[in-house]
Amino acid sequence: MRYALLISYDGTNYGGWQIQKNSITVQQKLTEALTLTLGKPVTVTASGRTDSGVHASAQVCHFDADTAIPPERLADAVNFHLPEDISVLKSAVAPEGFDAVASAKKKTYLYRVYLARRRQPLRDRYAVHIKYPVDLERLASSGKLFEGEHDFKAYCASGSQVKTTVRTVYSVETNWVETPFYTDVGIRVTGNGFLYNMVRTLAGTMLYCSAGRLTEEDIIRSLKDRDRNAVGKTMPANGLTLERVDYGIDIFN
Amino acid sequence: MRYALLISYDGTNYGGWQIQKNSITVQQKLTEALTLTLGKPVTVTASGRTDSGVHASAQVCHFDADTAIPPERLADAVNFHLPEDISVLKSAVAPEGFDAVASAKKKTYLYRVYLARRRQPLRDRYAVHIKYPVDLERLASSGKLFEGEHDFKAYCASGSQVKTTVRTVYSVETNWVETPFYTDVGIRVTGNGFLYNMVRTLAGTMLYCSAGRLTEEDIIRSLKDRDRNAVGKTMPANGLTLERVDYGIDIFN
Repeated sequence: MRYALLISYDGTNYGGWQIQKNSITVQQKLTEALTLTLGKPVTVTASGRTDSGVHASAQVCHFDADTAIPPERLADAVNFHLPEDISVLKSAVAPEGFDAVASAKKKTYLYRVYLARRRQPLRDRYAVHIKYPVDLERLASSGKLFEGEHDFKAYCASGSQVKTTVRTVYSVETNWVETPFYTDVGIRVTGNGFLYNMVRTLAGTMLYCSAGRLTEEDIIRSLKDRDRNAVGKTMPANGLTLERVDYGIDIFN
Repeated sequence: MRYALLISYDGTNYGGWQIQKNSITVQQKLTEALTLTLGKPVTVTASGRTDSGVHASAQVCHFDADTAIPPERLADAVNFHLPEDISVLKSAVAPEGFDAVASAKKKTYLYRVYLARRRQPLRDRYAVHIKYPVDLERLASSGKLFEGEHDFKAYCASGSQVKTTVRTVYSVETNWVETPFYTDVGIRVTGNGFLYNMVRTLAGTMLYCSAGRLTEEDIIRSLKDRDRNAVGKTMPANGLTLERVDYGIDIFN
């Protein structure tokens, strides 16, 4: 029987999703917890890897197992064995033919920054401090340039091996909230898939454009000529949260 | 010359504001940073203590010193010596006769909880997980019972030594935001001063009332008879943030 899990994690203390040497990962912790819960070794597959330090408010995974635990109660059973910074929010029997990677249709990531002259310790865990001036209208409009099907090679960390660097970005929504001491900014990107570091580089490019360090023409050129020199820096991991994986059906109803 | 500082801190890793043995405190870290900045020992006084684990988005302190550093640049100079979870947001010469404790007219605290069946790791640092059902309208209306001048003895941790347990609460505002997996709830309390553990016990009492474990009559009785048995439990420290200290004038303009 194949099961699906909806999980959330604070990525601060993990070397990302995927099991690896020399670093504790979310997949490792979840595998250990599932193995303790089910009493036998389990392989867990997530919709995609998240990098070291990246958070998830709703990551989806699947695993195959044979257990008498009712599907909806698996979440609590597994949580009992998980550390506090990882939580199973929902569990269910997966639909026929479901695969957490292959069945994913859309993903949404949120990149968060805050604009302030000085550090805000209560924001630093999940958002990145931006000290330079940012034109928020320009930030929002620069994001729109990424919408559609493009070759995002310029936004992909070098050395990554993928068949194609063409992806479709369905939307880039920018919103902001002024508070007495800083402005909170969220960049929410939905696409059919993302290359390694793509959202973080896209956010960095939007910020550079909003600060006048790059132009909208640079962004257009980066997509047309796949020119890495026309893009901004890759932003830090802690500002990024995987917010939603859309399978076109409600798995956890 | 007396200076005023506006500071923010994540209280997670501190034993509260006040210097003490056996635990690292915010006052200690700030004193060390100021001493390094000014080159001589300094005593820093905050508007009031915050307990172990409590956060501050805008605490106010004063200290006396003789320095050539321009007042508004003190903030950056001190931040250079502070750890990442403490930040000086603003610095200024204090107004004539200013005392961070005695001049304070009002304080505002925010208590945050989230309502969810299961743990939300991305909320746990600054909000407390409530698993039992909460009637949000009732939560909001129960808070209104605390507004006005009352003897809050029932809401004061035993053993604390204060001249009077009478305080004036100007407002208790409750707001909430529904998200796909949980409901964020904030209880914002403004008063002329607060007893030890008062806001955390007030929040716990409101939550018990909203869950049907206490009645509004219990709350009225707790204020009239100063009856500790009529109040809810003191909520955990990590949900509490000191949000504002009001001196009736803008110190940092």
